[in-house]
Amino acid sequence: MKVIYGAAYYIEYSTSDRLETDLQLMEDAGINTIRIGESTWSVEEPREGEYDFARVTEVIEAAARHGISVIVGTPTYAVPAWLAALDPGVLGGNRFGPRQNMDITDPTYRKYAERIIREIVSRTAGYENVIGYQIDNETKHYYMHSDRVICGFREWLRKRFGTIEALNNAYGLNHWSNSVASFEELPDPAGAVNGSYACAFDEYRRELAAEFLRWQAGIVGEYKRDDQFITHNFDYEWRQLGAPGQQMGRSYGMQPDLNTHDAAAAVTLAGTDVYFPAGDRLTGQEIAFAGDLMRPLKRAPYLVIESQAQAFTGWLPYPGQLRQMALAHIASGACGVMYWPWMSIHNGIEAYWKGVLSHDGLPGETYEEVREIGSVLRRVAGLPGDDQGSVMTAQGKTPRIAVVVSCEALHAMRWFPTDNDLGYNDVVMQFHRALYELGLECDVIYDRDREWSRYDMLVFPELYCADDSMIGQIRDHVREGGTVFAGYRSFFADENLKIRDGIQPYGLTDVFGMHYSRFTRTDEISWMELLEEEGADVLERYDHRHWGRYAAATHNIWGSGHAWYLGYTAGDERLKELLAAAAETAGIELPADRFPVITRTSNGLKFIFNFSDEEKTASIVSGSEEILTGDILTGDRAVIPEWGTLILKID
Amino acid sequence: MKVIYGAAYYIEYSTSDRLETDLQLMEDAGINTIRIGESTWSVEEPREGEYDFARVTEVIEAAARHGISVIVGTPTYAVPAWLAALDPGVLGGNRFGPRQNMDITDPTYRKYAERIIREIVSRTAGYENVIGYQIDNETKHYYMHSDRVICGFREWLRKRFGTIEALNNAYGLNHWSNSVASFEELPDPAGAVNGSYACAFDEYRRELAAEFLRWQAGIVGEYKRDDQFITHNFDYEWRQLGAPGQQMGRSYGMQPDLNTHDAAAAVTLAGTDVYFPAGDRLTGQEIAFAGDLMRPLKRAPYLVIESQAQAFTGWLPYPGQLRQMALAHIASGACGVMYWPWMSIHNGIEAYWKGVLSHDGLPGETYEEVREIGSVLRRVAGLPGDDQGSVMTAQGKTPRIAVVVSCEALHAMRWFPTDNDLGYNDVVMQFHRALYELGLECDVIYDRDREWSRYDMLVFPELYCADDSMIGQIRDHVREGGTVFAGYRSFFADENLKIRDGIQPYGLTDVFGMHYSRFTRTDEISWMELLEEEGADVLERYDHRHWGRYAAATHNIWGSGHAWYLGYTAGDERLKELLAAAAETAGIELPADRFPVITRTSNGLKFIFNFSDEEKTASIVSGSEEILTGDILTGDRAVIPEWGTLILKID
Amino acid sequence: MKVIYGAAYYIEYSTSDRLETDLQLMEDAGINTIRIGESTWSVEEPREGEYDFARVTEVIEAAARHGISVIVGTPTYAVPAWLAALDPGVLGGNRFGPRQNMDITDPTYRKYAERIIREIVSRTAGYENVIGYQIDNETKHYYMHSDRVICGFREWLRKRFGTIEALNNAYGLNHWSNSVASFEELPDPAGAVNGSYACAFDEYRRELAAEFLRWQAGIVGEYKRDDQFITHNFDYEWRQLGAPGQQMGRSYGMQPDLNTHDAAAAVTLAGTDVYFPAGDRLTGQEIAFAGDLMRPLKRAPYLVIESQAQAFTGWLPYPGQLRQMALAHIASGACGVMYWPWMSIHNGIEAYWKGVLSHDGLPGETYEEVREIGSVLRRVAGLPGDDQGSVMTAQGKTPRIAVVVSCEALHAMRWFPTDNDLGYNDVVMQFHRALYELGLECDVIYDRDREWSRYDMLVFPELYCADDSMIGQIRDHVREGGTVFAGYRSFFADENLKIRDGIQPYGLTDVFGMHYSRFTRTDEISWMELLEEEGADVLERYDHRHWGRYAAATHNIWGSGHAWYLGYTAGDERLKELLAAAAETAGIELPADRFPVITRTSNGLKFIFNFSDEEKTASIVSGSEEILTGDILTGDRAVIPEWGTLILKID
Repeated sequence: MKVIYGAAYYIEYSTSDRLETDLQLMEDAGINTIRIGESTWSVEEPREGEYDFARVTEVIEAAARHGISVIVGTPTYAVPAWLAALDPGVLGGNRFGPRQNMDITDPTYRKYAERIIREIVSRTAGYENVIGYQIDNETKHYYMHSDRVICGFREWLRKRFGTIEALNNAYGLNHWSNSVASFEELPDPAGAVNGSYACAFDEYRRELAAEFLRWQAGIVGEYKRDDQFITHNFDYEWRQLGAPGQQMGRSYGMQPDLNTHDAAAAVTLAGTDVYFPAGDRLTGQEIAFAGDLMRPLKRAPYLVIESQAQAFTGWLPYPGQLRQMALAHIASGACGVMYWPWMSIHNGIEAYWKGVLSHDGLPGETYEEVREIGSVLRRVAGLPGDDQGSVMTAQGKTPRIAVVVSCEALHAMRWFPTDNDLGYNDVVMQFHRALYELGLECDVIYDRDREWSRYDMLVFPELYCADDSMIGQIRDHVREGGTVFAGYRSFFADENLKIRDGIQPYGLTDVFGMHYSRFTRTDEISWMELLEEEGADVLERYDHRHWGRYAAATHNIWGSGHAWYLGYTAGDERLKELLAAAAETAGIELPADRFPVITRTSNGLKFIFNFSDEEKTASIVSGSEEILTGDILTGDRAVIPEWGTLILKID
Repeated sequence: MKVIYGAAYYIEYSTSDRLETDLQLMEDAGINTIRIGESTWSVEEPREGEYDFARVTEVIEAAARHGISVIVGTPTYAVPAWLAALDPGVLGGNRFGPRQNMDITDPTYRKYAERIIREIVSRTAGYENVIGYQIDNETKHYYMHSDRVICGFREWLRKRFGTIEALNNAYGLNHWSNSVASFEELPDPAGAVNGSYACAFDEYRRELAAEFLRWQAGIVGEYKRDDQFITHNFDYEWRQLGAPGQQMGRSYGMQPDLNTHDAAAAVTLAGTDVYFPAGDRLTGQEIAFAGDLMRPLKRAPYLVIESQAQAFTGWLPYPGQLRQMALAHIASGACGVMYWPWMSIHNGIEAYWKGVLSHDGLPGETYEEVREIGSVLRRVAGLPGDDQGSVMTAQGKTPRIAVVVSCEALHAMRWFPTDNDLGYNDVVMQFHRALYELGLECDVIYDRDREWSRYDMLVFPELYCADDSMIGQIRDHVREGGTVFAGYRSFFADENLKIRDGIQPYGLTDVFGMHYSRFTRTDEISWMELLEEEGADVLERYDHRHWGRYAAATHNIWGSGHAWYLGYTAGDERLKELLAAAAETAGIELPADRFPVITRTSNGLKFIFNFSDEEKTASIVSGSEEILTGDILTGDRAVIPEWGTLILKID
Repeated sequence: MKVIYGAAYYIEYSTSDRLETDLQLMEDAGINTIRIGESTWSVEEPREGEYDFARVTEVIEAAARHGISVIVGTPTYAVPAWLAALDPGVLGGNRFGPRQNMDITDPTYRKYAERIIREIVSRTAGYENVIGYQIDNETKHYYMHSDRVICGFREWLRKRFGTIEALNNAYGLNHWSNSVASFEELPDPAGAVNGSYACAFDEYRRELAAEFLRWQAGIVGEYKRDDQFITHNFDYEWRQLGAPGQQMGRSYGMQPDLNTHDAAAAVTLAGTDVYFPAGDRLTGQEIAFAGDLMRPLKRAPYLVIESQAQAFTGWLPYPGQLRQMALAHIASGACGVMYWPWMSIHNGIEAYWKGVLSHDGLPGETYEEVREIGSVLRRVAGLPGDDQGSVMTAQGKTPRIAVVVSCEALHAMRWFPTDNDLGYNDVVMQFHRALYELGLECDVIYDRDREWSRYDMLVFPELYCADDSMIGQIRDHVREGGTVFAGYRSFFADENLKIRDGIQPYGLTDVFGMHYSRFTRTDEISWMELLEEEGADVLERYDHRHWGRYAAATHNIWGSGHAWYLGYTAGDERLKELLAAAAETAGIELPADRFPVITRTSNGLKFIFNFSDEEKTASIVSGSEEILTGDILTGDRAVIPEWGTLILKID
């Protein structure tokens, strides 16, 4: 299978008839795939039961003539006005207008969603150039809050706890007179002041969202060919930038409202959307994070279904950056890169989310860069295997470090924040950035993914809640020679967010060779645990008049392994020092170059990026072939221009 | 007609019987007019159908005895509690308490409003000293949102577009599945994520507000004498200052929630309310802006119905400033100045909006300044014509520059902001301030006012949306020798806020001699369009490592005229340079003095203001007569003390 | 009666059976009292009418075996889920979950509250070691807003004003057409823009809250023994710190939503909860303020029912601070100190409000400090009288200065703020802090407490509203030789928040020897009144180009006394200078030491605190006995270590 290079294409949004023009421009640019149909239910079913897929099939057929493949989306993430009017339950009390505001458990919604899915898949599965389906779009639980969802939550709790006493105890509901005598009496979680109860509701709703995707996949599976994939564009926390109400923001850390690990069971190809600042602020970290989180989902290459061409005002890529982004995705293990959207949209809230073409629809400078990337990708993807390359199947990134993350920890930290401006994802991203800037490749795995034997070193940034089995597995990992690096507040509570009533770090004081029972903060340090060593090496004590006798970071050898603990909100440089030292105990070699020179190895190629506005040099093996230029590089360092990329063949 | 000098007078708010005291103080101060009655419906109709106009007629009759004229207000902007209780539809879901929270389309409201208007006008029109009526008060659409208003909106759309397909296309409703099959299915705009649709709803509601004023004018017209005017106090955007909930803020730019141009059809005399910081922050710009926006409405002098005496804490005018404000209004073409209120109010949210008298009701220092202004105004107003002067009729300010503004552009910029802290009115005010500080007089006209032949130079600050006819008219203006100065983002979309699918600046690339298809921002520049010249002179290129090859501002000679374009958010000084250069190409001479020395010419007089805390000199014609002192000034520069004003006779 | 040393104890929240462990740890630490039961209705009555007090009696009996007394709480401040479900009126429209969100006037709530109170008190009053009852918990009016409350408010107004005309006038309802023809027509205050009306509603609701406490006290009184006290934990304004939704904040100034002076009638022992930053931010002022406000309530010692052990992250006391806090409470006149809670809670929103024990339940360093304090307290409390001391009865602090505060002024200042970041409590706390840092002890009394003959000097920080009788009493106080120190904006309005229509300071221009009618602000000074002297000494004129002729602060001798007036928002140091000078005119001697060395005299002991991170010296009488060490101190200065305390016997 060749690398996917594509764009989202919305003939429905066009201001004029320009299908042939667009497809010819795509073909010229090396674009081989378009994604269509995921947001246009009102066009495909303008009135209840009245279907019109003319535009869909017209586009598929025209694309075929240009040698372009199509990913067809189910249009279920934005319901038509008639459906919202037919049964207000569909929107669960929300107003019509925005997308992704329906109750995905609503029976009316499900009935009509199922019908339109069956229609669109059955009508398109036969086309040769339809290579796969995207089910729904950036699915989350949308904070559904109907009585049906609340009742479902009670049943879910009953299954989890069995007795109401067990639930009262697990969540500590006696506090403030919140205990109840039966599951039926459990109140609407909207008023909850009990973080355990409230977070459990979110966890339940994340499961509903994952189940919704599996349900869609099941329907699609009845019609699709075996060679057609099912994918979904998983996304990340969306940090709003700019004015409220604007569709401007950035992908940042893990998605809070979907357990991507669970949801990935619904797809055969993991897909993702990722957006991030360019220009002076381009670092490549978000690209790496996206890949590091996506690869483990299916333990396979993933597809970048949406990424930016021009995107928001101020993100216009500097010359070279767009190419760098595409190659960084490939270097992270992506099997393809698709822009969003092909053409900038002329109305609506996404009008300034600019595409490959500006609003004038002409092939401008961004298009020219996209075209150049097309030719680069053909070259890169064509190298390793036969024909046009087989990046997708030949991949095989196996990082030796895993960063363990948790939806439940994320939400717990919203209830018990470490600091106002320091959310869980900030901590996760800081730890990931430290590894990234050190040049250490890693996977980012969910706490429910326990295939830890793949890794030499496990990193736990603020993994607040851990069940007994995880504690046991950490003990095993270290005992058997692995390295663990834990950040402050990790393992503090159990899976119900009940704070452990044992000594901290719970169940691991011998592993880490220290314990603590008090923590505080200063104007400089947001969180500081007063660690007391019991055998561990103290790496650092607090520089504080009163707390200077306590340890701030420790290292312990236990069993055959190493256990590192960071008790406070260390700065970036200190964190890098500690992680580098820990990696060393895990037997992982640090690369010669550090950020802004970033090296990624993938699929028999070594990608070296210069994420900076200045020329840099990078360490190379003399005699390496640079495949974009075909040059043979000599000496032990090669020059990389600003925002430039080298791709070296690995022998 | 003599100049109007007055104050708002509320006998209803008095804590004691002091009518005679007040009127005598007014008479002594030269105050010749009071405005009464616009906020006291509950006093005039304490119970349904039970009228009590005793206070109104008592005040009119007493005023007559002191030679004081009266402007009578209709009390419709604040409904009594009994009316809100009688039919909750009157408040359209709002709570009773605040003013201006009713649904002005509500039939019950209209019924009772009509009755009280007929009562008050029929009972007062016969009084000799009632010189005019104010209809309602600072009318806006109050974000009405009843089903009736939504249904009306659908009908308005049906008339505008004819077919639902036309509307779907114009607003791009296919986006996110928002298209509908009939006008009846159009959803409540409250949930809209489509800026075109949402802004159209605001436009419709602005039309309802204008219609409401025409309706009131029609009723008043049935009773009033021919020599009695109808006015209204049009206002501006209100920028909140101080704590939320406080009635503290400032007039700033155009009113977003009323199309003042359309609403002005209801009145025979344009009136306005304007408030602005004094003390160190007094610049006179807001006064100029108010006049520049008001004059074109009726192409005639306007009345400052409300302005500040002491107003908010911190706005207490320095000695001389109050006089300067009054004269600046007159110099801008006002036929009169009225303070709000006469006496500071003892209860309620406006208690710290201090009047001519403080709460103690004694003639203090502010009163003394008001009295001095009274004598100055008599002198100024008495000079040009016979008797007491005829400022109102003899006016004739005809600036050669017009700044074109648009309610629709203002709202579009709320959906697609240029920057968080840079709203449309900020841009309009920056452009106006630049002209003001250069000493260039201008009109500020609405985009619906197309009498452009009056002007040599048209300035378009961020005129985001323009219909085809405006594009054509701009072409004509330049072709025929006029000057156009356009700011960034102008002409980007059509009248439905649909972004043009042609090359930008849409329809004008030949006129401006350049085009662009991309824009971005940097940390320093909020908005930068990457202009590519096609014949234009490049005035400036971006000082940027990567975007330095693009133009930032251009000038083009096209036809017989000049077309200037500013592609980025330039600073104040740079904007002034460019506007000064453009004015030169329009054949407009720049005054010798600049801010803080401001010269205004009106009615045969030259007003020279020193808006600063330091003595300044100003250029004069030797031998000019200064009318306040009667001095003949010699030499080519005259001294103006801090916060001082000279008024020179023009021969 | 011995000094109370204790903690809140919640067996209901325990994760394991550790009652005996806990009580033994307490006994070892000298803890002699626990408070139980105030938040556990759902445990005590898990289903309607099904009572279970097993845990309560188990704890009381076990405590008795350890010589520990018990304060039993009525559990009414957090209703069980079944009660909220039984009748939604109980929560008055609020969601179940939080505490303190019920309508305390709701009949269903009252019925079930009464039943549970009767149950718990009747079952526990017989226990020897139950020494008192706490009724409810931190009671406020919770912004109740039911129709019943609104109707009650109308009746309250009818009683207050008699006629609707009187009310219309008092509140100035003619403004914006808010006047009504009958009490029945008075609108829901939720929409009020009239500060008088809105603040009256708050005043009424504060009275409902006070009445609710008296009602509870009445029920408890039917069962309790004569030797058992009734107390309540009065609190303060809660200033949120940290992220919204977090239970993190600080006690700061007077409680806005309860008139503590009125509510104190319900109790026989005033109690209080107080929390404040420790570490570098510990100043002792909040402790002093708490005592200064509590002592006058019953003119007797008060109980610190809740105070911090570890509390919030970042408040972990430095070594010595916890002891200092306890002694500062005692030095302020407290008869006891109780920590909240004993053991850190493992679930829920208060999980990070850490107690004496950390979540591990082990006696850690904080416990060790608590234990040391236990022994210190035994020593301190044992000294003055026989046996274990009689601090509670032997007290007798009689400060000669009173700071007069007012709930009504607090709320008025929310409507008419002096500055965005300067609320009423900020001003009160600034004045109190100035006195505190000067070492001047004071009472903080409510405006309704008119026992002014106890004081030589009265301080009025921004006492915005004063009725005629207070004005008269101020005149009497000065005439008869007292000193008055008034801050800006004092006496500006009457008890209905109607601004006085006489000259300011209203009714007191002769007393202060000055008047003003205008005020303004500058960038540096938030509020400046332009004072014009009429006999007063001008202490300071404004340093301002235009306002320099006005006085900023004045001093006047009138009758036999002194009247000081501060017309602007002076800085802390200037305020201290003025208050020190005023105190001198009141014949009050300033202590030799100032903050951070703070001296408090109580009960025959002189406490000297060093609230700083550096060693200090303090002035002493040579030969004094330091009772903690038993040392006899010589010389005229003694050394106090950082965060240290000396306690000297006064001969």
